[in-house]
Amino acid sequence: MIKNFKLIIEYDGSLFHGWQRQKKDRTVQETIENTISVMTKQPVNLIGSGRTDAGVHALGQVANFQSNTKITPEIFKKGLNSLLPDDIVIISCEQADLSFHARFAVKSKCYRYRLLNRLTPPAIARQYAWFIRKKLDIESMQYAALALIGTNDFKSFEGAGSPRRTSIRTLLKTEIIKKDKGLVDCEFTADGFLRYMVRNITGTLVDVGLGKITPKQVQKILESKNRDIAGITAPSHGLFLVKVNY
Amino acid sequence: MIKNFKLIIEYDGSLFHGWQRQKKDRTVQETIENTISVMTKQPVNLIGSGRTDAGVHALGQVANFQSNTKITPEIFKKGLNSLLPDDIVIISCEQADLSFHARFAVKSKCYRYRLLNRLTPPAIARQYAWFIRKKLDIESMQYAALALIGTNDFKSFEGAGSPRRTSIRTLLKTEIIKKDKGLVDCEFTADGFLRYMVRNITGTLVDVGLGKITPKQVQKILESKNRDIAGITAPSHGLFLVKVNY
Repeated sequence: MIKNFKLIIEYDGSLFHGWQRQKKDRTVQETIENTISVMTKQPVNLIGSGRTDAGVHALGQVANFQSNTKITPEIFKKGLNSLLPDDIVIISCEQADLSFHARFAVKSKCYRYRLLNRLTPPAIARQYAWFIRKKLDIESMQYAALALIGTNDFKSFEGAGSPRRTSIRTLLKTEIIKKDKGLVDCEFTADGFLRYMVRNITGTLVDVGLGKITPKQVQKILESKNRDIAGITAPSHGLFLVKVNY
Repeated sequence: MIKNFKLIIEYDGSLFHGWQRQKKDRTVQETIENTISVMTKQPVNLIGSGRTDAGVHALGQVANFQSNTKITPEIFKKGLNSLLPDDIVIISCEQADLSFHARFAVKSKCYRYRLLNRLTPPAIARQYAWFIRKKLDIESMQYAALALIGTNDFKSFEGAGSPRRTSIRTLLKTEIIKKDKGLVDCEFTADGFLRYMVRNITGTLVDVGLGKITPKQVQKILESKNRDIAGITAPSHGLFLVKVNY
């Protein structure tokens, strides 16, 4: 009997060429698929909620796979965690309706981009934040981020070369949160994200924080639908897929 | 003219065989000494506040070196940070009195041991905390830690094979702090620490947290001056040298 398994997955993206299986490079999807196959002795197709790019981390990526195995969800969780490399952890494994599809069923996703704003670069946890030396004006960044909320054409913040029907997305929530010791978390919840969208928005918000552009200009960048006038793409290692909502 | 430079140093201990220079292995002291010598074109002796063991991290290690260089502290900081590998950062460099000696002048040090107490092991930041699956009773750990405060013979918590005149130390402060998402920080401030002392105390406190021993037994372990009855040595990767006070 075919069963459908839903996984919640944490991974450290540092040593992966992203989520999606590729011919040569090490990817999260391929690593987990191979490990499931070791347990089930069958080929398997693991469906992620979406791709993450090379170097991007996940605290709560979601994926599903179907199998006629007799292995229980609990044994999958234990077995996968003992067989997988240290940089992937299965947070939970449960049986889902056969109709559950980790990509098509997504209602919204939450991403976090972590900045470290202090005078010297970090040695500890340097693989998990983008270091910004000059002092950021967090209030201006918060104000600018609000201008992006709503159903908008995010073409100005889209990376080139990704197939999609439309560049309109609904950004439900943004928060720029100042934490201890120079950490600044930029959180974004949307019904979906374009390629590099969070990293391009973050690069632009950092320009606001540095006083290079005003919060009002962010609104204009959005309206221009022109990638060339937005800020740089923030590096991948500050980005975390936090949660996928169904 | 001879000048004395004081450095505050952050390092990620993951890929170092500790602080102290060795014949073959990569160490923090040797790496910084070599880099200073690249700048001054002279051999140099870098004096640390004390050793840290292989795998142990530092947020605020302190060291000093003397040199007749014309290089200013500011240029040292910039130059060293551009030449050093990513896992060492010079947080500050300043000129100190010629009499300042980073080891002999220590008044106290603060170490932090970080635990991660949750159901599944971490993929993110797994190199910076000791993962404990079973639920820890933090209040019992706090109570047990208090019993260690004061001037005591910490022989029960001392690793073998380290030269020292006495195993009496003054533990000034302990705090067991429950943080977000399963993180538990165990902080210890003392006038000095024996080899493995923080890791042995932490291993014992974790036994308390797991209900294997009572808080009262920690007092007895201390009084026994017998290493064999204390808990295991917590792994190095959860330990941080936070601050050195002069």
